[in-house]
Amino acid sequence: NANAEVEVSTKGGLKVSSGDYKFEAGGRIMYDYNRSELNGEVDEDDINLRRGRIYVKGNVSKNWAFKSQFNIDGSGIEDAYLRYTGWGKGATVTIGNQKMPFGLEELTSSKDISVLERSAITERYAVGRAEGVQLSGKGGKSTYGIGIFTDNEKDSEIGFAARYTFAPLKTDTSVFHLGVAYKDIDESSALGLETAFSSGPFHIQAEYVDGEEGAADDLSGYYVQAGYILTGETRPYKDGAFKRVAPKGKAGAWEMVARFEDGDGNHSDIELGDDDASAYTLGVNYYAHKNVKIGVNYTDGESNTSDDDGSEFRVRFQLTF
Amino acid sequence: NANAEVEVSTKGGLKVSSGDYKFEAGGRIMYDYNRSELNGEVDEDDINLRRGRIYVKGNVSKNWAFKSQFNIDGSGIEDAYLRYTGWGKGATVTIGNQKMPFGLEELTSSKDISVLERSAITERYAVGRAEGVQLSGKGGKSTYGIGIFTDNEKDSEIGFAARYTFAPLKTDTSVFHLGVAYKDIDESSALGLETAFSSGPFHIQAEYVDGEEGAADDLSGYYVQAGYILTGETRPYKDGAFKRVAPKGKAGAWEMVARFEDGDGNHSDIELGDDDASAYTLGVNYYAHKNVKIGVNYTDGESNTSDDDGSEFRVRFQLTF
Amino acid sequence: NANAEVEVSTKGGLKVSSGDYKFEAGGRIMYDYNRSELNGEVDEDDINLRRGRIYVKGNVSKNWAFKSQFNIDGSGIEDAYLRYTGWGKGATVTIGNQKMPFGLEELTSSKDISVLERSAITERYAVGRAEGVQLSGKGGKSTYGIGIFTDNEKDSEIGFAARYTFAPLKTDTSVFHLGVAYKDIDESSALGLETAFSSGPFHIQAEYVDGEEGAADDLSGYYVQAGYILTGETRPYKDGAFKRVAPKGKAGAWEMVARFEDGDGNHSDIELGDDDASAYTLGVNYYAHKNVKIGVNYTDGESNTSDDDGSEFRVRFQLTF
Repeated sequence: NANAEVEVSTKGGLKVSSGDYKFEAGGRIMYDYNRSELNGEVDEDDINLRRGRIYVKGNVSKNWAFKSQFNIDGSGIEDAYLRYTGWGKGATVTIGNQKMPFGLEELTSSKDISVLERSAITERYAVGRAEGVQLSGKGGKSTYGIGIFTDNEKDSEIGFAARYTFAPLKTDTSVFHLGVAYKDIDESSALGLETAFSSGPFHIQAEYVDGEEGAADDLSGYYVQAGYILTGETRPYKDGAFKRVAPKGKAGAWEMVARFEDGDGNHSDIELGDDDASAYTLGVNYYAHKNVKIGVNYTDGESNTSDDDGSEFRVRFQLTF
Repeated sequence: NANAEVEVSTKGGLKVSSGDYKFEAGGRIMYDYNRSELNGEVDEDDINLRRGRIYVKGNVSKNWAFKSQFNIDGSGIEDAYLRYTGWGKGATVTIGNQKMPFGLEELTSSKDISVLERSAITERYAVGRAEGVQLSGKGGKSTYGIGIFTDNEKDSEIGFAARYTFAPLKTDTSVFHLGVAYKDIDESSALGLETAFSSGPFHIQAEYVDGEEGAADDLSGYYVQAGYILTGETRPYKDGAFKRVAPKGKAGAWEMVARFEDGDGNHSDIELGDDDASAYTLGVNYYAHKNVKIGVNYTDGESNTSDDDGSEFRVRFQLTF
Repeated sequence: NANAEVEVSTKGGLKVSSGDYKFEAGGRIMYDYNRSELNGEVDEDDINLRRGRIYVKGNVSKNWAFKSQFNIDGSGIEDAYLRYTGWGKGATVTIGNQKMPFGLEELTSSKDISVLERSAITERYAVGRAEGVQLSGKGGKSTYGIGIFTDNEKDSEIGFAARYTFAPLKTDTSVFHLGVAYKDIDESSALGLETAFSSGPFHIQAEYVDGEEGAADDLSGYYVQAGYILTGETRPYKDGAFKRVAPKGKAGAWEMVARFEDGDGNHSDIELGDDDASAYTLGVNYYAHKNVKIGVNYTDGESNTSDDDGSEFRVRFQLTF
């Protein structure tokens, strides 16, 4: 009610709450230097704003929440949804532009992924954000999401997606995650399998996707990623996805990460496009602070169908507020 | 001054004030499902973000206020103005992108209209927002606005618009509104007549427009709209326009609404374009909360000049913060 | 830390701080009427939003700051950077979209310049904002900035810019400023020399640029600007650039300003394009309040290579929050 005490806080962004009401503002800035080569010739050599976003979100009543997130370069919306939470955590309804429930790596925020760019299967098969209506929830060790979606940018028909995750092991310093998802939208259907294991500073995660696109069936690919945090922190896990490392000490945290991927997917970061290819990535992340990360990645891959080979070197400066 | 007490509040958006200074942030999210047919064939069948906006507004001194409102999809500004209020409520000067003073339905915010989409005459003859300078004010039972405007999107010449409203009856639960407006911009001139009556849960409103566009004169159209709030609330009225229903009870408020329209106008929602047509609309609004509305409309119409008939079914989820 | 006291203030925009953390929001609205003529014939006659921007900025830790500033019309970003301040004021690192260190007039905010539009040499040779990495700092009477930049809009190669300023005289009511800068980006290199002197209500400033663009060398131009504040205020100066006048009295402040410019440059405001031309500008600024300015300018110029002459009359309403 109007007499509720108002609480205001900032850690770079803004949070204001008063009884059932809440207003938050924040965002992210990611600046990259990337240099990619195809068959030894430089294709890209660039400094650019990889993501520049601002969001506002909040609660307009006990049962209704919202989020609006947009790109500051004018390229459009990310999130724009209203959410009904009146049935509790087991059954939340989200209406509008939101992430489709498909893919561990996709549903881990770009602020929180360990490798700078997502894997080729995620880039190709996970739609990311779309307009639709989703029922989602969590309870015990499980989370689920199921919804209908349409990708207006592609003028698509209405499709659907569903995902279920289960974490038989979950403590403050360890987790064992299993997930399965299916989606069918834009004449592209896919089955995704996820697993991840984390214990103290070590984590490993893998996803496999079996997809069909139009007449082309029997597409498939996978990635395996492993990381180790030299300074001893544990990669946080919450509600079926990972969060980024929060350094314990003032000197920040250091993380080593490696990924191997193989099969169909969108390998355009290393200039191999939608080819069937295999690639490995090595990376180092320095978390100067919970909200500041500097990452360096090197990816090298080769086509499984031609003699093409491609590589990318990428450095990222990331600040979240 | 700098020592003034700071007051902070949120009801989803944000308000901060300190002496003469004020900062506010808020916005709206409207998600629609709409399906339209022309002569029995489906033309649109879509989920889309109808409006996604964020605004900031405030006061930088006792006499100067501002508002910046933009679309989060990158499609541009809505409001962007500065306002001088030093002469009191009787004479306010507004400079910049703002609504032109023409049309009861147009000057009622899209957050507050009873039928989901505005009538064909409003869509065609009311310019909505344009760049210009307006003198406006209120006193006793009257409001007025007069200004010069240019529609830069259309690369238009400078035009003008003026509106006067009078409410001979105005109590907490009833109002009788009369309005007249004239505008001449973009080689389109129009005279608009408005009337509305509200008593307790019932309201009726009507507008008639007589317009000329280029060489085509003798264009005209009208609508009549009536509504009844089943849960007993009264539709608020303030300064020559209506506001949306605020539910009294925790169960929300229910409103039935009907509209009949006939004549020239922009009937594109039912796929009849700028044809001379007649149409009726039936609708139900559920106000879950002051800031959350779910509305359902059905519109059916037919051309007065051909055999074409069109219809639209529309559902809206609306959240304001 | 989380227990730090939270301070909230507004003077139209918003400032919230808590220990090392800070969040600020603000912006600017500039509405112009401009009418330009070429050889006596009207070329532009327009009301338009000259600048409509919103920014958020803040600190996410003791050592890391950020700023995101965008145009509300969807035309893209202005600032988008993260900044490391851990080495003190003598050596700050800024990563991302930011102003290149070149030009006194360019590095004076558009909110703070005395003539409504910047001079022809600034419009042509100063890049303004670009993506890059800059090391900058201040100490004693000096400031410096040096960085590498790329102008992605022009798909440019990586270039660099550097600037040094020195203020041998600096008191509350007077300053003597000297500056030198060099940049080489987009096949356009330029040497810039700056000087300014301010004493009480009077100021004079001048810049000279010697540039080369592609094969065309020996380009050069300059401007000299002088201003006098009738109400006695002094134009503020800070860190190598000017700030706008803050009126002492409730009646506001009045400033007279004149500029003469000659040589190569971008003279498109007076419809002479990149011609070699000379022009003078007379202007009056009324500062109704620290955050509200109304300015009127008249510029008249003629080509040094043809018989063309051009002029512009411009009125600006400016509000900052």
